[in-house]
Amino acid sequence: MYTFKRYIKQIYANTIMAKKEAGLEKFFYPKSVAIIGVSANPKKLGHVIFRNFLDGKFSGKYFLVNPNEKNILGQTCYPNIHDIPEKVDLAIIATPALTVLEVIEDCAKKGVKHAVIISAGFEEVGNFLLRDRLKSKLNKHGIKVIGPNCLGVYDSSSLLDTLFLPPQRLERPKIGEIAFLCQSGSAGAALIDLSSENGFGFSKFISYGNAINVDETDLIEYLGSDPKTKVICLFSEGVKDGKKFMRVARAASKKKPILVMKGGMTAEGSRAILSHTGALAGDPEIYKGAFRQAGLLQVECIEELFQIAHLLQTSVRPKGNRVQVITNGGGFGVLATDAIIKNGLRIAVMDESTRKKLTKKFTNIAVVKNPIDLTGNGTTQWFKEAIDAAIRDRSIDIILAITLYQAPLLGQDIAEVLIKAHDVKKKPIIVVATGQEFRKTIKPKLEKNGVPVYEFPEKAVLAIKYLVDYYSLNS
Amino acid sequence: MYTFKRYIKQIYANTIMAKKEAGLEKFFYPKSVAIIGVSANPKKLGHVIFRNFLDGKFSGKYFLVNPNEKNILGQTCYPNIHDIPEKVDLAIIATPALTVLEVIEDCAKKGVKHAVIISAGFEEVGNFLLRDRLKSKLNKHGIKVIGPNCLGVYDSSSLLDTLFLPPQRLERPKIGEIAFLCQSGSAGAALIDLSSENGFGFSKFISYGNAINVDETDLIEYLGSDPKTKVICLFSEGVKDGKKFMRVARAASKKKPILVMKGGMTAEGSRAILSHTGALAGDPEIYKGAFRQAGLLQVECIEELFQIAHLLQTSVRPKGNRVQVITNGGGFGVLATDAIIKNGLRIAVMDESTRKKLTKKFTNIAVVKNPIDLTGNGTTQWFKEAIDAAIRDRSIDIILAITLYQAPLLGQDIAEVLIKAHDVKKKPIIVVATGQEFRKTIKPKLEKNGVPVYEFPEKAVLAIKYLVDYYSLNS
Repeated sequence: MYTFKRYIKQIYANTIMAKKEAGLEKFFYPKSVAIIGVSANPKKLGHVIFRNFLDGKFSGKYFLVNPNEKNILGQTCYPNIHDIPEKVDLAIIATPALTVLEVIEDCAKKGVKHAVIISAGFEEVGNFLLRDRLKSKLNKHGIKVIGPNCLGVYDSSSLLDTLFLPPQRLERPKIGEIAFLCQSGSAGAALIDLSSENGFGFSKFISYGNAINVDETDLIEYLGSDPKTKVICLFSEGVKDGKKFMRVARAASKKKPILVMKGGMTAEGSRAILSHTGALAGDPEIYKGAFRQAGLLQVECIEELFQIAHLLQTSVRPKGNRVQVITNGGGFGVLATDAIIKNGLRIAVMDESTRKKLTKKFTNIAVVKNPIDLTGNGTTQWFKEAIDAAIRDRSIDIILAITLYQAPLLGQDIAEVLIKAHDVKKKPIIVVATGQEFRKTIKPKLEKNGVPVYEFPEKAVLAIKYLVDYYSLNS
Repeated sequence: MYTFKRYIKQIYANTIMAKKEAGLEKFFYPKSVAIIGVSANPKKLGHVIFRNFLDGKFSGKYFLVNPNEKNILGQTCYPNIHDIPEKVDLAIIATPALTVLEVIEDCAKKGVKHAVIISAGFEEVGNFLLRDRLKSKLNKHGIKVIGPNCLGVYDSSSLLDTLFLPPQRLERPKIGEIAFLCQSGSAGAALIDLSSENGFGFSKFISYGNAINVDETDLIEYLGSDPKTKVICLFSEGVKDGKKFMRVARAASKKKPILVMKGGMTAEGSRAILSHTGALAGDPEIYKGAFRQAGLLQVECIEELFQIAHLLQTSVRPKGNRVQVITNGGGFGVLATDAIIKNGLRIAVMDESTRKKLTKKFTNIAVVKNPIDLTGNGTTQWFKEAIDAAIRDRSIDIILAITLYQAPLLGQDIAEVLIKAHDVKKKPIIVVATGQEFRKTIKPKLEKNGVPVYEFPEKAVLAIKYLVDYYSLNS
């Protein structure tokens, strides 16, 4: 009996392993990597990628391949991938486009099944023949490729990093639970750099370029089952196989939120895409409808992509769309109220018992309505009372706390109150807070503890709208 | 003849002086200030205001008034404003509400015609009687008041600073040419703090609170003629005297752009205002129409207020709405194109001669259309060529340069190219740029030289839309 159980277990493990072999796992967690085309010249892409491994903390082994060098910065160079004395899980190829076919042939002989091709010079410069020859070679050998013409992969847990931009140009993102897919390398790099400044954390960043045989759909399918990813963000210029995309995206959306920013939502934008990636952008209205049908959340502005993802990553599921605003600044309370209505959410009406209790506690100074306006007299303790009451009140689904730290009575201990309220995981609690001192002292504390923080009420409310939308589209 | 000329000149000077006396000049450039209600307790508002003068660099003289102290931090306290041995231009009053009538009586005797009343406790807490008595006393003595229940005034050139929030809570803004009017103290403080972090500069910040006899209309009239102010920003919760507002705003709009963010644009937001300032917010659609009729630019989101003002402050007048995008990242070029169309602007079509010349220079690597996509190969020199050509091309009204600094070939010298292009003042040139390194090194240089910079293409294009709107509404 015991043996049989073990036998079944073994079969199951083998199946999982086989699935992983055939899947995309090795693009992110290879045990060994060969970097092919590492130059001694620090300005060359291959060199920069090598430095990522040399200076970084990649969890596996790596080997350099360059027939013209014996060693670079003290590391052995192998003339060919064959000469590497160990198994290679992933090849990173940064050689000129015209040599790539040969390199792939070598990889095939070595038994490599996964490659990231950084090299440019395929269909994006009109070389369709080279693309077709590469494609058939990959199919013949069963090799999966991210790229060509891409930045490749950054994985924040294995610390695999093929991004050929040095860290002083492109700061690497913090560890987190957002996976970001971006065809365009330049846009991806700019957004990653900016968002790591804004405190967003990523599980994976994948710039997939020409998508020769691994496209956004394959990546969404993989990320849908990736335990390290809670939210998937896609900056898309166009989807080639619409049917496959819809089927995969619909299934993945049920598991976790997928946000999409679609470039080319105007005829003129479509034409710009044609010059950029050669892709056909397609009819914006058809995309809109299809995304919605697949349960995807389409954002209207690239800035909002990670701001919204951040809330979806950190928040519990809301029971409904009734929002209670708690503020120590009336003006921001008004802006939040306007935004709640404009975004189709509802202003919560608290229970009479809650209202009475809070009015008594705040001795008639605060306004106990919606917004609850604690005024400039609002202390940390008052915020705590109001938030606790809102968590208990069944007429409230979502709490928006606006803590203006410029007001003299609000102490640094507001951070603990917000963290605790977020930690009970009863209701989504979203924080609006501004200010230089706040940014320096309290914000990092909140972010470390997963509390979603926004600088403007409109931004926070927009994210809430997407939070509510996700669960109503995918339940 | 000469004497007559001098005589006329003198009369003219006297008139100006009389107008200034009766006007609001002394709220910003008083030669001498009395701070009434300075406590020795560092937590009291009056004390914080005193510290602004003690630690700051106010250009005039100041005197402390407190009957219970002989001196505070080494500065003499006068028992009453009478006892000050010099003329006083402006009284700053931070005594309890119930003492304010008496303090005003003292000010009147001293010949003071301008006061900022910080003290709260008037109609905003239901004390209408006290408000009415204060109002009639001010009228009787011809004293103009900013407040009560406000943060008061910050002037970045005289460095008059009545904001009772210490600098570690509220960082003071940089000198600049935006004047910001905000009834609400908390919202004003939060926005000033945040925007000084974002590099925006201000000429004046005025939180005018209950507006007992100086309201937003009076301030707009004054700022319309203020040579230090290029753009006026108003965060309004409601306008009391609509007719007067329309007349004044229309005239001021002809002189310089006025941006307005109106809180309470939904029924629920209006109700929140009623609890906040007791003002009636009025019908949103009526406001919308009236603002437009007066030539004001209404923004939809508080975050955009200064972002848009920044462009209006720094840009020359565009001849039309045809925008040329120049980028080294195709993805951001697509986003900019979409945004141009969505905002009702036009994609410029460059002259054939420009296209031919640039295509030749960029040796077929860059895409010379709109966007001009220099690709990752784009150097500073290429940007210079493209921008110079766009400045000369009469089919282009506005230039949007997207410089993604993550790309390895773009050097720090891009700053000089952008500054020079901006300096020729032929056409509006707007920059989109992101990245940590960029923010640290190039952005401060661009901002110091008045080049408008945005982090996202959509934000830049929105600002361009308002720039075009302003001149089409007010020409």
